[in-house]
Amino acid sequence: MIDVIDIYKEAINGNKRAIGKLLTLVEDLKEENLPIVRDILSKGGNAHIIGITGIPGAGKSTLISKIISELRKRGYKVAVIAVDPSSPFTSGAFLGDRVRMQKHATDPGVFIRSLASRGLKGGLSLATLLTLETFDSLGYDKIIIETVGAGQVDIDIFFAAMSILVVTIPGAGDEIQALKAGLMEIGDVYVVNKADKMDADDAVQQLKFALESGELTKKTDWVPRIFKTSAVTGEGISDVVDSLEEHFAYLKRSGGFKKSVLLRREHLVKVLLYWLAEREVDKKLSTVSDIIDAVKKGQIDPITAALKAYDKIF
Amino acid sequence: MIDVIDIYKEAINGNKRAIGKLLTLVEDLKEENLPIVRDILSKGGNAHIIGITGIPGAGKSTLISKIISELRKRGYKVAVIAVDPSSPFTSGAFLGDRVRMQKHATDPGVFIRSLASRGLKGGLSLATLLTLETFDSLGYDKIIIETVGAGQVDIDIFFAAMSILVVTIPGAGDEIQALKAGLMEIGDVYVVNKADKMDADDAVQQLKFALESGELTKKTDWVPRIFKTSAVTGEGISDVVDSLEEHFAYLKRSGGFKKSVLLRREHLVKVLLYWLAEREVDKKLSTVSDIIDAVKKGQIDPITAALKAYDKIF
Repeated sequence: MIDVIDIYKEAINGNKRAIGKLLTLVEDLKEENLPIVRDILSKGGNAHIIGITGIPGAGKSTLISKIISELRKRGYKVAVIAVDPSSPFTSGAFLGDRVRMQKHATDPGVFIRSLASRGLKGGLSLATLLTLETFDSLGYDKIIIETVGAGQVDIDIFFAAMSILVVTIPGAGDEIQALKAGLMEIGDVYVVNKADKMDADDAVQQLKFALESGELTKKTDWVPRIFKTSAVTGEGISDVVDSLEEHFAYLKRSGGFKKSVLLRREHLVKVLLYWLAEREVDKKLSTVSDIIDAVKKGQIDPITAALKAYDKIF
Repeated sequence: MIDVIDIYKEAINGNKRAIGKLLTLVEDLKEENLPIVRDILSKGGNAHIIGITGIPGAGKSTLISKIISELRKRGYKVAVIAVDPSSPFTSGAFLGDRVRMQKHATDPGVFIRSLASRGLKGGLSLATLLTLETFDSLGYDKIIIETVGAGQVDIDIFFAAMSILVVTIPGAGDEIQALKAGLMEIGDVYVVNKADKMDADDAVQQLKFALESGELTKKTDWVPRIFKTSAVTGEGISDVVDSLEEHFAYLKRSGGFKKSVLLRREHLVKVLLYWLAEREVDKKLSTVSDIIDAVKKGQIDPITAALKAYDKIF
């Protein structure tokens, strides 16, 4: 236990290695670490959580890199949680992106954490929610969550995001259909990236039309903004950050900020309950090995086995 | 209950609407449908489960479309389960792909099911495992699972795949690093897609080298195969299908097939146990509303709340 507390103290002092260690402790949640997580949760509640989503190939990661630079210029500490499995933040697969991220890696005010490709025992939703609380508790002002915007995990994660930025690209008329079909009607700020492409204005018009017809609009007073950006030249980035700041001010003013913190923590309780229940299953699995063996031998079906095993475990 | 049995009977007769309904019933698993799932599980165990994975942009979906055509030529009934959230099978976002899939949609011997973007209550792993068993039970000979190859869900799903095809593209030296880092060292067949690109041979050589050095090789007698394909022209597709067939024969001969069916059903028991436990949490959540309200009001932290609520529920 003393060890963990030391790590936590050093993490608060900004030691990046300690922050990494603390995140690993929190993500691979174990019963003995619950007190430290409780401590973490008691300190946060101040950060601006920004969800950034969009189809693969829209240039999310490059855009995020530029947004980080802009936020740093404005004096904010920035953390990124990458949950999109196709993200370069996650796989570190593309050399260009790796180089681009390098400058952030050496910046003491930036911490990038990738969660997608790791086999997290407690599940990705729980790990992401706890990582977020940890960054919040450590005093990061802006926490960016990058997701692909589809699937149950993304729904869980978007529970936590206060401002949502949706990234699309020109020539994506079909993609707007996808936006509509998916989660992405929840944007507070929309970005048409790769604005150097000829049909960027068309894409902006299409988005505007969809927003004005109410198809993509959340039910709040906030009127979603649309911007053209070029993650390569940097065009439009400061406007995007301005509007995220505006949205943050709006949330603070309207009570949406406080509500969002409490809602995400309420959601955390449910995800923790799932985790506690699953852990009980894992712990007691050996006590039902006879039932599992019978399935292995093809003697009983998995449904009968699961129901029997459940009754024995709980 | 009678309804469900009727749907099942019609599904067995090949009625596509009934198959769709049956899959929805199975995916949105409810207690009252457990008997039908048990029935489904009692009939399967014959299908060849093929996992197809690779980074977004590698052309997985187009390749799968060609593989479906080749398998159909050989007289097999084919089902596809799309789990990759960036897949065109999933989002239906790209017009070109949609047109390409159209011919399969009208083929009575092909069924494509997308799972990624749906908010499945029991979780994606359980839904995928049960969808797979349903296709197996309905007599589909080849069941293709398309995943992005990262994350816990993919690990769960790859538990079920018997033959794994890894798709990469030329100029992907960095991607091979990603392959190594991820799940993808588990390939039985490797495909360098977009073979019309100049550096396809380089990519094949790099893969060969990685395979020969043992870095990408599973611990079985099967020697992984490497092919160049062009999903656009169709080059190499029949070789790929030949080698999948060879691998299937190998599995049948070595006992790996039978073992795989039982292993995946053993895994299903565990995933079902998680589901049963989570369902219990959902069912009893209203009995702990006072605790959750206290979190909403910021009176207690989520950890304390979850532990308290857990003791009350179980």
